[in-house]
Amino acid sequence: MAYRAGVVGASGYTGAELLRLLAGHPDVEVVHVTAAANAGAAVERLYPSLAAAYPGRTYEEYAPGDLAGLDVVFLALPHGESQRLVPDLVDRVGHVVDLGADFRLPAPAYERWYGSPHQATDLLDAFAFGLPELFRDEVNRSNHVAAPGCYPTAATLALAPLLAAGLVEPTGIVVNAMSGVSGRGRGLSTPSLFSEADGTVTPYGLLNHRHTAEIELALDHVWAGDHAVQVLFTPHLVPMTRGILATCYARPAVDGLDTATLLARYREHYAAEPFVIVLDDPPTTKATFASNAAHVTVRFDPRTGTVLALGAIDNLVKGASGQAVQGANLVLGLPETAGLSSVGVQP
Amino acid sequence: MAYRAGVVGASGYTGAELLRLLAGHPDVEVVHVTAAANAGAAVERLYPSLAAAYPGRTYEEYAPGDLAGLDVVFLALPHGESQRLVPDLVDRVGHVVDLGADFRLPAPAYERWYGSPHQATDLLDAFAFGLPELFRDEVNRSNHVAAPGCYPTAATLALAPLLAAGLVEPTGIVVNAMSGVSGRGRGLSTPSLFSEADGTVTPYGLLNHRHTAEIELALDHVWAGDHAVQVLFTPHLVPMTRGILATCYARPAVDGLDTATLLARYREHYAAEPFVIVLDDPPTTKATFASNAAHVTVRFDPRTGTVLALGAIDNLVKGASGQAVQGANLVLGLPETAGLSSVGVQP
Amino acid sequence: MAYRAGVVGASGYTGAELLRLLAGHPDVEVVHVTAAANAGAAVERLYPSLAAAYPGRTYEEYAPGDLAGLDVVFLALPHGESQRLVPDLVDRVGHVVDLGADFRLPAPAYERWYGSPHQATDLLDAFAFGLPELFRDEVNRSNHVAAPGCYPTAATLALAPLLAAGLVEPTGIVVNAMSGVSGRGRGLSTPSLFSEADGTVTPYGLLNHRHTAEIELALDHVWAGDHAVQVLFTPHLVPMTRGILATCYARPAVDGLDTATLLARYREHYAAEPFVIVLDDPPTTKATFASNAAHVTVRFDPRTGTVLALGAIDNLVKGASGQAVQGANLVLGLPETAGLSSVGVQP
Amino acid sequence: MAYRAGVVGASGYTGAELLRLLAGHPDVEVVHVTAAANAGAAVERLYPSLAAAYPGRTYEEYAPGDLAGLDVVFLALPHGESQRLVPDLVDRVGHVVDLGADFRLPAPAYERWYGSPHQATDLLDAFAFGLPELFRDEVNRSNHVAAPGCYPTAATLALAPLLAAGLVEPTGIVVNAMSGVSGRGRGLSTPSLFSEADGTVTPYGLLNHRHTAEIELALDHVWAGDHAVQVLFTPHLVPMTRGILATCYARPAVDGLDTATLLARYREHYAAEPFVIVLDDPPTTKATFASNAAHVTVRFDPRTGTVLALGAIDNLVKGASGQAVQGANLVLGLPETAGLSSVGVQP
Repeated sequence: MAYRAGVVGASGYTGAELLRLLAGHPDVEVVHVTAAANAGAAVERLYPSLAAAYPGRTYEEYAPGDLAGLDVVFLALPHGESQRLVPDLVDRVGHVVDLGADFRLPAPAYERWYGSPHQATDLLDAFAFGLPELFRDEVNRSNHVAAPGCYPTAATLALAPLLAAGLVEPTGIVVNAMSGVSGRGRGLSTPSLFSEADGTVTPYGLLNHRHTAEIELALDHVWAGDHAVQVLFTPHLVPMTRGILATCYARPAVDGLDTATLLARYREHYAAEPFVIVLDDPPTTKATFASNAAHVTVRFDPRTGTVLALGAIDNLVKGASGQAVQGANLVLGLPETAGLSSVGVQP
Repeated sequence: MAYRAGVVGASGYTGAELLRLLAGHPDVEVVHVTAAANAGAAVERLYPSLAAAYPGRTYEEYAPGDLAGLDVVFLALPHGESQRLVPDLVDRVGHVVDLGADFRLPAPAYERWYGSPHQATDLLDAFAFGLPELFRDEVNRSNHVAAPGCYPTAATLALAPLLAAGLVEPTGIVVNAMSGVSGRGRGLSTPSLFSEADGTVTPYGLLNHRHTAEIELALDHVWAGDHAVQVLFTPHLVPMTRGILATCYARPAVDGLDTATLLARYREHYAAEPFVIVLDDPPTTKATFASNAAHVTVRFDPRTGTVLALGAIDNLVKGASGQAVQGANLVLGLPETAGLSSVGVQP
Repeated sequence: MAYRAGVVGASGYTGAELLRLLAGHPDVEVVHVTAAANAGAAVERLYPSLAAAYPGRTYEEYAPGDLAGLDVVFLALPHGESQRLVPDLVDRVGHVVDLGADFRLPAPAYERWYGSPHQATDLLDAFAFGLPELFRDEVNRSNHVAAPGCYPTAATLALAPLLAAGLVEPTGIVVNAMSGVSGRGRGLSTPSLFSEADGTVTPYGLLNHRHTAEIELALDHVWAGDHAVQVLFTPHLVPMTRGILATCYARPAVDGLDTATLLARYREHYAAEPFVIVLDDPPTTKATFASNAAHVTVRFDPRTGTVLALGAIDNLVKGASGQAVQGANLVLGLPETAGLSSVGVQP
Repeated sequence: MAYRAGVVGASGYTGAELLRLLAGHPDVEVVHVTAAANAGAAVERLYPSLAAAYPGRTYEEYAPGDLAGLDVVFLALPHGESQRLVPDLVDRVGHVVDLGADFRLPAPAYERWYGSPHQATDLLDAFAFGLPELFRDEVNRSNHVAAPGCYPTAATLALAPLLAAGLVEPTGIVVNAMSGVSGRGRGLSTPSLFSEADGTVTPYGLLNHRHTAEIELALDHVWAGDHAVQVLFTPHLVPMTRGILATCYARPAVDGLDTATLLARYREHYAAEPFVIVLDDPPTTKATFASNAAHVTVRFDPRTGTVLALGAIDNLVKGASGQAVQGANLVLGLPETAGLSSVGVQP
C-alpha cells in the first residue's frame, strides 16, 4: 500500500518536478496538490507533460486541514513561507519535507544571512539537513527534512571527500558555480526572461549569496579540525534550463597530493552511494539531466599547488525535488533509491 | 526472466536513447552493444549519463555471430546499412527492430525517394511499419519492425483522425515541421554545429525531403478513398536538442466542421491509445521531452476554410527509440507500454 | 547638422534597439528618451550594451512638452498607447514614427481585429504603412509612419512578388511563421520565461493572430485583382532571442511555373531594394541578425502544384526598429539606408 | 584612399568576422580572401550575412604572390599554420596581423605549452602582443601584430589594474572562465555539435590549457615585482555562440582594500581606453555582443580576504577579429577605433 503524499506549492518548478518523480514512485501516491495564484487551474494546463499522470487534477488552495493525516507533505514554497506554515502543519502529518531554505540553518546563521529573525526556531531541531550523503544518520533520526539548496548540494558533494580526509585547508576555498535558469523558479522577473538569459552568462550574488551559509555548514559537518570552513561562492546564470556545475578550488593541507590518488580516494569515499558517480573526465550537467545523480571529479595541480574539485547535478532533481524524495524515502523507511534514477537524459 | 537484447549502432543518439530506455525496462536486458568508429570505447565516456546503468560496458565491433540467439536486436544505423546487415542477421535472432529507413517503404517507393534500388527486397514483407497507433495489427502479425521516422510520426498522428474519418481532402495537405538538432544524429556536419544551429531557424529539404514518402504511406493506410494522399512537407531545424512539432494544413472534404467537434472526434479516435494525448491547447515539444507521448490538437478555421492539426513528440523517443521499444514490446508479446513513460520532463 | 530625435518607450526591446541603431546614425541624434516603469533609471543599467553610446543618460517620464520641437519622435509602446498619445503630440513634432499597431490598419479593420474602436480615427490617414518596399510612395507623401509588425514584414516581403505579378491565387495562402522570444517584448509573462521557452516550440495565436490583418492589407496593396487576399497565419515561438522566419504556401494562378523563373522574377522585383536579398538557398534568420536585411527565396513544387515562398528577418530590426529608422529616413528626406546595415552578425 | 587588405582563412569564424568588421571600416578595403577546404566557394553561400557586402566574392586558394603589395594581411588560421606561412609572406606585405597563437609567446614558452619547437623563431620579435590596452607602445613600434587569445583578453583586462598597482599577489590567482562555442571554430568536432553543447556546461582543459601562458605573459608585463605571475586557469564551454566571461580571484598584497576604492581605481586605469568599460554591476557577455568592448568590474570580499575581478567580451570581436582590426589600425597609423564599435547588440 502506498504512502499518501501532498505537495504544497505544486505549480512551481520544484513542485512540478515532485509530481513528475512521484508519478513514477512505487510506494508513494500524490493525493493532494496545492498552489497559490494557480489554485483552481488544471495541472495539465500548466504542465501538459503531466497530463497522462494527473488527468483532471486541479490545484487546491492551501488549507492545513486538507493535509491532515497524510504520511508526507512536501513544501515547495518561496523563501520564508515554510516557517509560517510548518507550526500548524507539523502535528497533523507524518513527515514534512521542506524544499525551501527555512529549516536548513541554525537560527543565528539564518538571521545573519537572511536578515531577519526566524519565526519558528523551536522547530528547527525537528528538521535534519537533507543531504543524505553527508547527513544520513541525522535524516534517519529525524521526523522532518530540510532538503538543501542546489548550489550547496553540487559544491558540497564535490568538496566533501577532501575535507573529510583533511586534505585541504578549510579556508581559502573558492566555489565558482553556474546554474540553469530554472533555479530562479517560475516566478516572473526580468532576469528570468528568455531574451535576458539567452546567449549570455550573468554573474550575480557576488560575495554574499545566501547559499554560502549552507555550503559552509555542510562542509563544517565533515571537517574534523578546529577552524570553521570558509568559502567564497560566486554563482553565474548560464543559458540552459537545468543543471548546476560547481568548480571548486582549495589549498592542500598535506604534502604529496596527486590526481590519481585523489580520484581513488573519491571512489572509495562514495563507493556505497547510489547517486554519486566519480568520473575521470570533467563532469557535465547534461549527463545528470532529469536524474538524481551527482557527478564529481578532482584534480591536483602541482604547478600552482591547488586542488580542483568539480561537481554537476540537475538542480531540479538532486538539487531539489529528487533530493527531497530521497529524504522522504529515508524518513518513511523506504529504500533510499525508490522512485529515483541515476540515469540522465543525454543528449 | 528478461528478454535478451542487442543494440547495433549504440553510440549514436538513437542508440544511446535505446540504452537509456532499456535500462529501465522491466523485461528486457541489453546484453550486447556495438559501434563502428567507437568500438572499444566505454559507453560511459561517450554518455556519462549511462555510467550508472552500464558500468564498465564497452562498445563491440559488429559481428552477426555475437548476436546469435538474442531475442531482439535493435538496429540504430545510418540510412542504407540495415539492408546490408539484415539478410545475414534475420535468421539468427528472434526479432529485428530497425530504426532506420531501409525497411519502411515498398521497393518502388524506396527507389524513387532514395535514388537507388533496395538491396534486400525479399525481406521487406517481413517488416511491419512500426507505428502501432496506425499499424498495430500489422506489427502484431510480423516478426520484425521498421520503426518510422520522427517527422512521419508527428505528422501522421496529427492528421490520421481526419483522414480516417474522411473529413479532409487527401490532396493539398501541407506539413510544416520543426525539429531539434539531435534529429541530425551525432555524425559530424557543419549544420549540426552549435554555432550554426544556435539562434536561428533553418528550412531545408524543400519540396523533396524523403520523409514525405512515409507520411503519405501512413496516411494512405488510414484513408479509405480512391485518391492517394499527397503531402507537401517542409522541415525546419530549430535551436533545441530534442523535439518535433508538425503544423499541418488540410482542406475540408465535408461541410459543417467546427473545432469542438473535431477535438471530440480526436479524443474518441485516440481514447485507447496510451501514448497519444489530445490537448485543447496547442502542443509544445517540451511537454513530451524524454517521454514516448505524442500530443496533438486540431482546429477548424471557418474564415479560410482550413483544418489545422498539430502534433508534438520527442524525436528521439516517440520519434525513434521509444517507438522502437513500443514495437519490440508488441513482437515480444509484452505489454505495449513496458519500459515507456508518457510523462515528459518539463521544464 | 543632425536631426533631433526622441524615443518614447525606450526601455523596451524595440526602444533599446532604436537607441542602438540611432547611436550609429550619421544624421540623427537622440536627445530625449522616456520610459514608464523605468523612468529615472540609467539606460546603461538596463542595457550595459549602450553604456558607451549613452553615458549617464537616464529615462525620463513621458511629457509631450519635453518633445516639442523635435524633428522626429519614435513611439515604442505597448498596443493601444500610441492612439492615446499621438493626438497631443502630432502637432508638436516634425514626424512621428510609431512602432506599435495603432496606426497600421483602417478603422474598421482595427476594430474587427483588436476588439475595440480606435480612439484617434481622424489621424489614421496621416500615417503611412511603413513598409517602404511596398509603400514607398505613401511614406514619401506622409508626415508620419506606422511601421508594420515583424510577422507581416517577413511574410509580405516573401509573398509580394507573387501577388504583384498575379502568379498565385489571393486566397488559400498559408503563412507558417516562427519568431524569437524578443518579439514578446521585455514585459513579464510566463511564456517569456527562459525555462518556458527554452528547448521547445510553442504554437500560439491559432487562427486569429492580429498580424493576419496586416499581412492581408499589405498583400492586397500589391495584388491587382478583384478578390481580397486571404491568409491563414500560424505563429510559433522558437527558442532564440531574435529572428522571424515565414514559410508561405500559395496556389498558382497561372500555368507553367518553375523555380528558376520564379527566382529570376524575385531578383528583378527586388533589384533596386537595398534591404531585400534574394537567395538561392533557404534563408535563415541568423544571416539577418542585427541587420535591416530581409532574405527571401521561392520554389515551385510541380508534384503538389504549390508555390513555396520563404522570408527571414531580424524581428527587432527589419521587423521593428530598423524599419522605423528606414521610414524616418524617408520622411526626413535622408538617404533611405542612413544608419542601417544589410550585413548580419553570423555566427 | 583605403588601405588594401587580405584575409587568409576567411571561411572560419574569425575570418568571417573580419569580413563583417572590415565591410564597415572606412579606411580598409578587403581585396583578397582565401580559404583552404572552401576555396572556390562563394562567401555568401557560407555566410549569407555577408551577401550584401561581398556580392559574388569567392574564396581563393592561398598563394603568397596573390597577397604581394597589400597593406595588411590578416591570418585567421588554425594553430601552427601561421609560422609556416609568415616567413614567405612577411616581406611581401606591409603588415601581418596574426589571429592565431603562433607569434604570441617567446620561443621557450611556446615550446613548453605547445609541445614542439617554434618554426620561425627569428620572426617572433617582429610581432607585438596585440593587446593594445597593455602593449600599445609595443604595437606602435612593431610592423606586425599577434592578436592575443580570447580568454587571455578577458582575464587580463579584468586583472591588469590590480597587478599594475601591486594590489594583489602575483601567485595564487585563479581564472575561472566560460566561453561560447564559437571559440572552438567552424571545424568539425563532436564537442562542437549543437546536441552536445546545448543545455550543458562542459569544463575542459583542466590545469593545462594553453591560454594560461598568455595570461601569465600579459599580467607579468604589467606587474612590476620580482615574482612571475602564476595563474590557474579553468575554461568551461557554455551553451551560447559568442562571449567570454572571466571570473578571477586574487589575494590582496596590501591592507585596507575595499570595493569602492577598487572600482575608482579601475575607472582611472581605463579612463583613456575607448573599448574598456568599468561597470558597477557584474558584466554580462551579451552586453558586449558583436562589439569590441570589454566590460569589467571588481570587488573586495573582506570576509574571506579575496579580490574578485570579472571581465566580459565577445570572443570573436575583442577576443579575436575586432582586436586584430584594432591592432591593424595602430600599425597602419589609423585612429585606433576606426571600423570598431563599443556598442553591443542586446538583447
